[in-house]
Amino acid sequence: MDYKGLAQKYGTPLYIYDFNHIKERYNELKNAFSGRKSLVCYAVKANSNLSILRHLANLGAGFDCVSIGEVKRALMAGAKPYQVIFSGVGKSDDEIKTALNSNILMLNLESEAELDRVCAIAKELNKTARISIRINPDVDAKTHPYISTGLNENKFGVDVMSAKKMYLKAKNSAHIEPVGVHFHIGSQITEISSIIEAANIVAKVVSELKALEIDIKFFDVGGGVGIVYDDEQNVSLYDYAQGILAALKGLDVTIVCEPGRFIVGNAGVLLSSVLYEKFNKNRRFVVVDAAMNDLIRPSLYDAHHGVEFLGKNEQISPCDIVGPICESGDFLAKNLNLPKCQSGDLILIKSAGAYGFSMSSNYNTRPRAAEIGIEDGKDRLIRRREKFEDLIALETEFLN
Amino acid sequence: MDYKGLAQKYGTPLYIYDFNHIKERYNELKNAFSGRKSLVCYAVKANSNLSILRHLANLGAGFDCVSIGEVKRALMAGAKPYQVIFSGVGKSDDEIKTALNSNILMLNLESEAELDRVCAIAKELNKTARISIRINPDVDAKTHPYISTGLNENKFGVDVMSAKKMYLKAKNSAHIEPVGVHFHIGSQITEISSIIEAANIVAKVVSELKALEIDIKFFDVGGGVGIVYDDEQNVSLYDYAQGILAALKGLDVTIVCEPGRFIVGNAGVLLSSVLYEKFNKNRRFVVVDAAMNDLIRPSLYDAHHGVEFLGKNEQISPCDIVGPICESGDFLAKNLNLPKCQSGDLILIKSAGAYGFSMSSNYNTRPRAAEIGIEDGKDRLIRRREKFEDLIALETEFLN
Ligand SMILES: Cc1ncc(COP(=O)(O)O)c(C=O)c1O
Ligand SMILES: Cc1ncc(COP(=O)(O)O)c(C=O)c1O
Repeated sequence: MDYKGLAQKYGTPLYIYDFNHIKERYNELKNAFSGRKSLVCYAVKANSNLSILRHLANLGAGFDCVSIGEVKRALMAGAKPYQVIFSGVGKSDDEIKTALNSNILMLNLESEAELDRVCAIAKELNKTARISIRINPDVDAKTHPYISTGLNENKFGVDVMSAKKMYLKAKNSAHIEPVGVHFHIGSQITEISSIIEAANIVAKVVSELKALEIDIKFFDVGGGVGIVYDDEQNVSLYDYAQGILAALKGLDVTIVCEPGRFIVGNAGVLLSSVLYEKFNKNRRFVVVDAAMNDLIRPSLYDAHHGVEFLGKNEQISPCDIVGPICESGDFLAKNLNLPKCQSGDLILIKSAGAYGFSMSSNYNTRPRAAEIGIEDGKDRLIRRREKFEDLIALETEFLN
Repeated sequence: MDYKGLAQKYGTPLYIYDFNHIKERYNELKNAFSGRKSLVCYAVKANSNLSILRHLANLGAGFDCVSIGEVKRALMAGAKPYQVIFSGVGKSDDEIKTALNSNILMLNLESEAELDRVCAIAKELNKTARISIRINPDVDAKTHPYISTGLNENKFGVDVMSAKKMYLKAKNSAHIEPVGVHFHIGSQITEISSIIEAANIVAKVVSELKALEIDIKFFDVGGGVGIVYDDEQNVSLYDYAQGILAALKGLDVTIVCEPGRFIVGNAGVLLSSVLYEKFNKNRRFVVVDAAMNDLIRPSLYDAHHGVEFLGKNEQISPCDIVGPICESGDFLAKNLNLPKCQSGDLILIKSAGAYGFSMSSNYNTRPRAAEIGIEDGKDRLIRRREKFEDLIALETEFLN
């Protein structure tokens, strides 16, 4: 890859996504469930760029959305409404209304209070709301606490007992059609056994519902399949799919999964230029033009990202890679070995395709980076770099 | 305050700033240094809304900026160039050029490599660059590690020895005029003694520089004065100012300080509506329409924010306040006692004026909140709420 050329053409910091990699990952997952009805709903939150969504829509993907904004993005990118799911613990009335009017596949409900709201709104609109219920199976996903979501101490979903109660209520409502069941126990899961354990718990619920004449058509296993950032084991998609299929034995359901990180995580890099090198006492810092506002994962989750240096490979020594933001929390990598850097040298921060740009901010009045896609060797802009004018646009008219 | 009326008029989540409080805090600090030449440079990063900057400019404040975007904001809001300082470990060539052409008071340098760049660029522009040097005094500010910046293990500033070397180099350069010295050891400091300790260390450097005929005019003590979020002690501005003045005995310098949080922290609240209440096992969650994308401090710094409930005060029990974002890291307050909530009830998240909106993002395709100012009982919009269209504006033209 001609990173130097890309840096010159688009500037840095720059998010670069490999569209071919995205396609491969999508197909891998789709094929893992072959021989079974399945729907791979890409989790938009991981990276919501419209061109990435369109790329996935063209491959036949569905979409897992957690705000009406994400639903709109998916539809705008070409998603078929009956392949769009809307999850989340805090849907507002407006969001529910718009979702029902958009005729998406289903709303994934996370509390009884929400079921009541959806019921009332569906009635008001004289519609039937297709719903699934998110079950919190109380299974430990063994990942960072911030992205672990399948324990009862988390805010997500409802326990098995409450879920059954809600399904019965839903069945008895004229405006609700329960069509799915859902769980998602966390993100960046590398021990697949916890997902399988959850699948077994939830499959049992589906059987019990069948006895109550509640016919679940969509079995949604959430996202969460981990990727390799550092020295993690590669998750075996075969084991993942087989484990789920085994749990579903005897059930005639469409398998839905909601991968985010797995599809785009390793498809993206953040290209950045070195500004300065400095030593404080014996500690070496390489200051680059990307910062925590561009990629907050190291700071927020203590996440590791591989780094590749693209300059001359001489005089290697340990250093921290930090950004220009005025706080010590602004670091991208710590304690790694890097050659002596010159101002203008390029570095690649790897595995930055998921939860990178989508979590970025304008902290320190820093314009957000440009994003480009590469497909079959051709690069193209998919979001232009922010300008100062973009940052102040919603404030200037009120300046008096 | 008629929060209900404000919620109806502007919607929620809503940032509300008290302009009178900002004015009081600015005047308190200015008066603490009375009898001495002083310049209070508001740290723009804490809250960079243009109307807040204009409000402070009208009061006579200077501005501490850490990106060229912040410099532009300050100037646009009416700052006098000779009251603007530009700090930061990673200034790019373009930023340095624009800053020199804007004739601001001084560039605050953080490494020898940066001094060399500024020297080269000033020469190229045929200008003289007024500079200060940020000294890292190796003093422990006893605050959260992410906002502790005065230890040598941090990326900020240079040690005393290196600073002296840099001042000599600067003095001998035709295009550099060393006019200031600077330190900033951290944020949310409640033990003022660490700032005083740093002031003494740096004052000694100033005396030594005088002997070398380097005449420091501006003595910048940074920001960092803590505020009360919870049960912190109120910092005594009298002790703070007297401690600094004592350190400066015999030196004829203008005192510069760079308060951010102290000025705006307690001037702001985040008003939010309850969406749902839910129980997972025995744990109670109040789901509100503000989230970690609006206020990341609880999640990033484990920060405490007081919460005020604005509904009926009945059936009080412990709960977590969480947002609609799909990760467990999305919480605003944990384990606090709150009455039973109804959908539509309002809650206030307090002390949200600093590092609130300025760190906010569009994660989960959530539009950023609106901001309003209240002055003498009158409310007015100072930044309008983002719309879905704003969020996708830089992407749509590339959708193909
Ligand atoms: C409900 C739901 N589905 C899917 C995902 C995607 O997770 P991942 O990116 O780990 O695949 C998330 C992530 O938070 C989620 O909350
Ligand atoms: C150089 C500098 N000055 C001033 C401030 C403002 O700090 P505070 O908001 O704690 O006053 C900061 C904050 O990070 C800073 O880095």
